[in-house]
Amino acid sequence: MHKLQDLLPVVQQALDAIDYPQAPAELYTPIQYELSLGGKRIRPVLTLMACEMFGCDYHYALDAAVGIEMFHNFTLLHDDVMDKADMRRGKPTVHIRWNENTAILSGDAMQILAYMQVMKSPAAVRDVVCVVFLQTALEICEGQQYDMEFETRQDVREEEYIEMIRLKTAVLLGGALKIGALIAGASDDDARRLYDFGINIGLAFQLRDDYLDVYGDAKTFGKNIGGDILNNKKTYMLINAQRLAQGAERDELIHWLAIDDKPDEKIAAVTALYNRLGVDALCLEKIDTYYAEAMKQLDALSVEKLQTEMLRELAMSLMQRNS
Amino acid sequence: MHKLQDLLPVVQQALDAIDYPQAPAELYTPIQYELSLGGKRIRPVLTLMACEMFGCDYHYALDAAVGIEMFHNFTLLHDDVMDKADMRRGKPTVHIRWNENTAILSGDAMQILAYMQVMKSPAAVRDVVCVVFLQTALEICEGQQYDMEFETRQDVREEEYIEMIRLKTAVLLGGALKIGALIAGASDDDARRLYDFGINIGLAFQLRDDYLDVYGDAKTFGKNIGGDILNNKKTYMLINAQRLAQGAERDELIHWLAIDDKPDEKIAAVTALYNRLGVDALCLEKIDTYYAEAMKQLDALSVEKLQTEMLRELAMSLMQRNS
Repeated sequence: MHKLQDLLPVVQQALDAIDYPQAPAELYTPIQYELSLGGKRIRPVLTLMACEMFGCDYHYALDAAVGIEMFHNFTLLHDDVMDKADMRRGKPTVHIRWNENTAILSGDAMQILAYMQVMKSPAAVRDVVCVVFLQTALEICEGQQYDMEFETRQDVREEEYIEMIRLKTAVLLGGALKIGALIAGASDDDARRLYDFGINIGLAFQLRDDYLDVYGDAKTFGKNIGGDILNNKKTYMLINAQRLAQGAERDELIHWLAIDDKPDEKIAAVTALYNRLGVDALCLEKIDTYYAEAMKQLDALSVEKLQTEMLRELAMSLMQRNS
Repeated sequence: MHKLQDLLPVVQQALDAIDYPQAPAELYTPIQYELSLGGKRIRPVLTLMACEMFGCDYHYALDAAVGIEMFHNFTLLHDDVMDKADMRRGKPTVHIRWNENTAILSGDAMQILAYMQVMKSPAAVRDVVCVVFLQTALEICEGQQYDMEFETRQDVREEEYIEMIRLKTAVLLGGALKIGALIAGASDDDARRLYDFGINIGLAFQLRDDYLDVYGDAKTFGKNIGGDILNNKKTYMLINAQRLAQGAERDELIHWLAIDDKPDEKIAAVTALYNRLGVDALCLEKIDTYYAEAMKQLDALSVEKLQTEMLRELAMSLMQRNS
């Protein structure tokens, strides 16, 4: 069974080997550009690991893995248009480098190419893999819809927020793993457990992001600390702060949410409020809960514990990252 | 075998019966709205007719037909965003009624729902139907890309234009027919002939649109006459006029292309130029050529001539429309 470091170049090579039509160039070039922006390639690696875990050569899952990464990047492409994001990983987004129409249309083509890849899965499992993939794709759209709706709501509850991040980001991790398992011929129970492992890791991962935005190390985090605070982004931290704050703390929080011209002070003040309200500890606790649930799913798998090592290591490294 | 009038309510009923998830409402409502804007539903009807032509109950092709119509409407949704069109069939477009983000995201979800429908095709033909569908979907993106590129080019040649309309509009007619045939178990040769019939009818249809925009009857056409002329749209008429015009006529054409404040005069002048250059006759000739090729494909099918009657009638009615 291969480690993350062995599988990453496999994934990258497979992505580089995609045979794009030559023309029209301006339809396909932005697709290659979006993929070239990089990324950890976690999702396709999860697919390959899930496949290997059940004793199946990962090559059988490679087309699906590439399709999953292609699809993930398509969602980023369109999300950047909807979020009006100018940069991704330090480079101009597609709608900035080209234009918005190109971003919409190349994204549409990218989605089709993703399905074409997934459709190359072994014939015996093709139908069930496609069902999982399409359902996951639709759920991601649902998550993005909720994310957009939450921007203008002041009353988002924690369970709604969790459901949104489950749909928007966790289901693709779950789906990537489940697809790898199905290709390997895993039982329905094992496929479901791996899916749930993915969901829980995904939720832990996103909450970790919410936490690190406030408490991360700026040097290793790579992004500015407190960006979510400045944007009044409805994260786990803010949602719980709004729920818990009473009296003077409530007024103080409301005050800072209304301010946008004193960034350093805002970040410091809101962070201090988070500390006082204990939402930092709440968030870490929640992360631990999801992580523990993820490990439970791994333990429940019908494979030898040794077979789960790679995934266990990968999950731990995702959790331990300081950035 | 059923006529167009029998199949239309079947298609509409199947569209109305689609089981959309309840939430998030603002993801799915725009999809239903787009479908409710109407349309001739030609494409799904072609799928059903192609199925019946080979002696197969059309119900087997109904899911695919619905998926094809869903996909067609998704392309209209995103096209309206890219073209900045405010109205479709007299009603506000999705990005006007809601907003652009909704149009992008609901379109993305609509594309997924379309694939889910097509994936319900009978298991024995599912793979080959999906391959045709995905390839068609990608080609439509290519056509739209060329269409957008041509807007800013002054040197578009006729063969490029034909290729653009082939990809943007004809392949879906061909694909709809081919899918119906494949579901019915038609031979590869017959499936290919029906596909080519669809391509040729599609090309004839689009050129007919180009012609009617200039020479149609305003009352029956439903759109304003000369809209393409006012927009300097690169149609078959304009491309050939630019190719053929020499000397004074060339100068006159260039003059009118540069004017945008005398609409009635521009339409009259350019129409007169078209008449003098004979591009009206050229266009009608081209339409006849494609139509004749389409009929040749029908005649070459291995089915009884009687089995081709519905399609023959449908093609004739498409050609004879005055609007």
